[in-house]
Amino acid sequence: MSTAIKEQLKQWLTDNQERGIKLLQQFVQAKSTQGNEKGVQQLVREELQRMGLEVDVWEPDGRRLAEHPFFASPRKEFSGSPNVVGVLKGTGGGRSIILNGHVDVVPEGDLQKWNYQPYSGKLVDGKIYGRGTTDMKGGNVSLLLAMQAIQALGIRLKGDVLFESVIEEESGGAGTLAAILRGYRADAALIPEPTNLKIFPKQQGSMWFRIYVKGQSAHGGTRYEGVSAIEKSMSVMNHILQLEKIRNERVQDPLYNQIPIPFPINIGKISGGDWPSSVADFVQIEGRIGVSPEETMDEAKEEMAKWIERLKEIDPWFEEYPPQLEWFGARWLPGAIEQEHKLMNILVEKFQDVLDEEPVIEASPWGTDGGLLTAIGDTPTIVFGPGVTELAHHSDEYIEIEKIFIAAEIIALTLLEWCEIANASLSEN
Amino acid sequence: MSTAIKEQLKQWLTDNQERGIKLLQQFVQAKSTQGNEKGVQQLVREELQRMGLEVDVWEPDGRRLAEHPFFASPRKEFSGSPNVVGVLKGTGGGRSIILNGHVDVVPEGDLQKWNYQPYSGKLVDGKIYGRGTTDMKGGNVSLLLAMQAIQALGIRLKGDVLFESVIEEESGGAGTLAAILRGYRADAALIPEPTNLKIFPKQQGSMWFRIYVKGQSAHGGTRYEGVSAIEKSMSVMNHILQLEKIRNERVQDPLYNQIPIPFPINIGKISGGDWPSSVADFVQIEGRIGVSPEETMDEAKEEMAKWIERLKEIDPWFEEYPPQLEWFGARWLPGAIEQEHKLMNILVEKFQDVLDEEPVIEASPWGTDGGLLTAIGDTPTIVFGPGVTELAHHSDEYIEIEKIFIAAEIIALTLLEWCEIANASLSEN
Repeated sequence: MSTAIKEQLKQWLTDNQERGIKLLQQFVQAKSTQGNEKGVQQLVREELQRMGLEVDVWEPDGRRLAEHPFFASPRKEFSGSPNVVGVLKGTGGGRSIILNGHVDVVPEGDLQKWNYQPYSGKLVDGKIYGRGTTDMKGGNVSLLLAMQAIQALGIRLKGDVLFESVIEEESGGAGTLAAILRGYRADAALIPEPTNLKIFPKQQGSMWFRIYVKGQSAHGGTRYEGVSAIEKSMSVMNHILQLEKIRNERVQDPLYNQIPIPFPINIGKISGGDWPSSVADFVQIEGRIGVSPEETMDEAKEEMAKWIERLKEIDPWFEEYPPQLEWFGARWLPGAIEQEHKLMNILVEKFQDVLDEEPVIEASPWGTDGGLLTAIGDTPTIVFGPGVTELAHHSDEYIEIEKIFIAAEIIALTLLEWCEIANASLSEN
Repeated sequence: MSTAIKEQLKQWLTDNQERGIKLLQQFVQAKSTQGNEKGVQQLVREELQRMGLEVDVWEPDGRRLAEHPFFASPRKEFSGSPNVVGVLKGTGGGRSIILNGHVDVVPEGDLQKWNYQPYSGKLVDGKIYGRGTTDMKGGNVSLLLAMQAIQALGIRLKGDVLFESVIEEESGGAGTLAAILRGYRADAALIPEPTNLKIFPKQQGSMWFRIYVKGQSAHGGTRYEGVSAIEKSMSVMNHILQLEKIRNERVQDPLYNQIPIPFPINIGKISGGDWPSSVADFVQIEGRIGVSPEETMDEAKEEMAKWIERLKEIDPWFEEYPPQLEWFGARWLPGAIEQEHKLMNILVEKFQDVLDEEPVIEASPWGTDGGLLTAIGDTPTIVFGPGVTELAHHSDEYIEIEKIFIAAEIIALTLLEWCEIANASLSEN
């Protein structure tokens, strides 16, 4: 590839910084929590149409989708929640790629913890604030900028670039599953989830669980006559923390060396009891278990079920009233791409080119739609993006503008080499 | 009092067993959780009217009531939630008495824990099952039977008997407060809350509290980057259990000797987090603290507030994010009647008469409307009833029919002596 192209690409990105920022701000302001993705998808559609792509917008058929063994979502109705795919057709003969990013965001949580309005997209000191900036609308903007830069330079690619703007990643990947089942496949995929510019060839799977803990109700004034499901749920949660420890002590893969808890078990929700002066006779906890690429989803389920059963050894209460474990809602398959895969080599090389340093190659501490792309779509996937994991799902979530543009540049260069330049005049240099 | 009257009274109660059972079943079937008391109060009104009493039915004016310093309720709107008072006028010159019982019931909790439908009033082996049987519609039926037996025998009393069928006891006594403020007073009061026929001259006060615990949200896959409010709330709850221990180690009064935890702190509700794969950044717990007649409500509040503040000594997290404590909703004043009070002496004597054994005299392990009657209504109150504390607020709550009638008999005899028989022909025997 000519130095001239590299320079022009960089220049175009510099010249278009303001436009990129505005695009991200619009994406963030179009609050797209589950069920509310229509607005942001309309913006994406318009952007892709401006680029002259073939654009496909459809609301997944939840009833059909739900029949797929890897469907996972708390809902089966997706009207008002469209997927958008835009295809930049290649001239033929090149490798194709899926660029996949989700537009759904998790709820903002406690508003008081935010210094900036969560859907403001406020720009402060080179950062854009708001829910979804880092996870992962910032990454989506990197993808769009990369494609636009290539177009602006008059470059035609041999392989197709499929840009997928999907719903439902945060609750199990039904959006990406719908795109796969609609027939979108490619030779490889890249997902710019927040990796802080690290390259993740392995993706952790995960599942959601719910546990019902029973107690025995009684008047709070004679609480010793009852059994508090809240106290019992504390035992259950401590027991689960121990399982997390055991599962993580097993991890050998050096890719996880820098990760304090490679496969966390997170208890994210709790609710129980129905009256302040009654002893609570039920508690429900909901959480997420990380699944290693070295195990199957079923193995992880079975280990947890057996571990929960062992609570009766700690407390005879659980013998009589065993906690009920169920799996529900979201589920992300673990995934992996070979570390010597051609797309890995190219991405690493372009990273070195742009940043003049070695990339960090790690395993992702969370599930992505890459698991589905790999296992169901037969499309090996790398996760690499400009956001920061630590800020995802966090109050005052933000993204550094500079990183959006660095990612865009690395991705653009990667596309040029992976899909190959078709214009004879340019590719000859 | 003549043996003949005692015999006739007993006989009347025996003859009217079926009617008493049916009345209680109707009361139970008229499910009267907070806000839904109208149906059961209509039944009470009809019963009192059949007895020829002056009946007063009114919906408390929540706005005016809320201005009272001892108002405590989660709501300020009582339309559809009437109080009912029926007065059996005396001929004059005797001591008056308030017979007070609440009709509101706590929610039924987990339906699966019930073997009998909670609002069935099902009769099995001498017991009537259902929410409110023991707490305290069974006691209310004892009161009505006692008054009806006296009427049936043609007895006129010198002192007035005020039957108060009140709402809102379970959430702080706004019903009884409204009755006091409407002008209903007497020389003493009796409340047949479930004491299992024990006599309670002391009543524990109590208050509801709410604690907000903060965390730091993060993606569940990197949960080590966040701080779980659920884990922090476990520390808070353990800390509160310690306060309960300290407060109860102080109790000297032998009335509490048989009570495992005289002044419990019950955590009845918990909720927190909003997404299974996010670290929970808030938890809210709600509970009830028992207040000793030896302390003021304010002293108890202050002790708890100071104790919660000390969490920062255990965990620096609480230094930066101190849990927020607030007092809300229900509140019951502690109360006490002198153990040598005339009504105490009469009740104890009638108990001995009917059961041929010594009554157990204890302190109530929970608050009652007796605190308000004593402190605001200037009416010293005894709590004595046929239900069983252990079954109150419990699944499969029931009451033994036999106890309803024993209580009715003891209460009828007590009324005859406390209010005095006015009929010259009868009182001469």
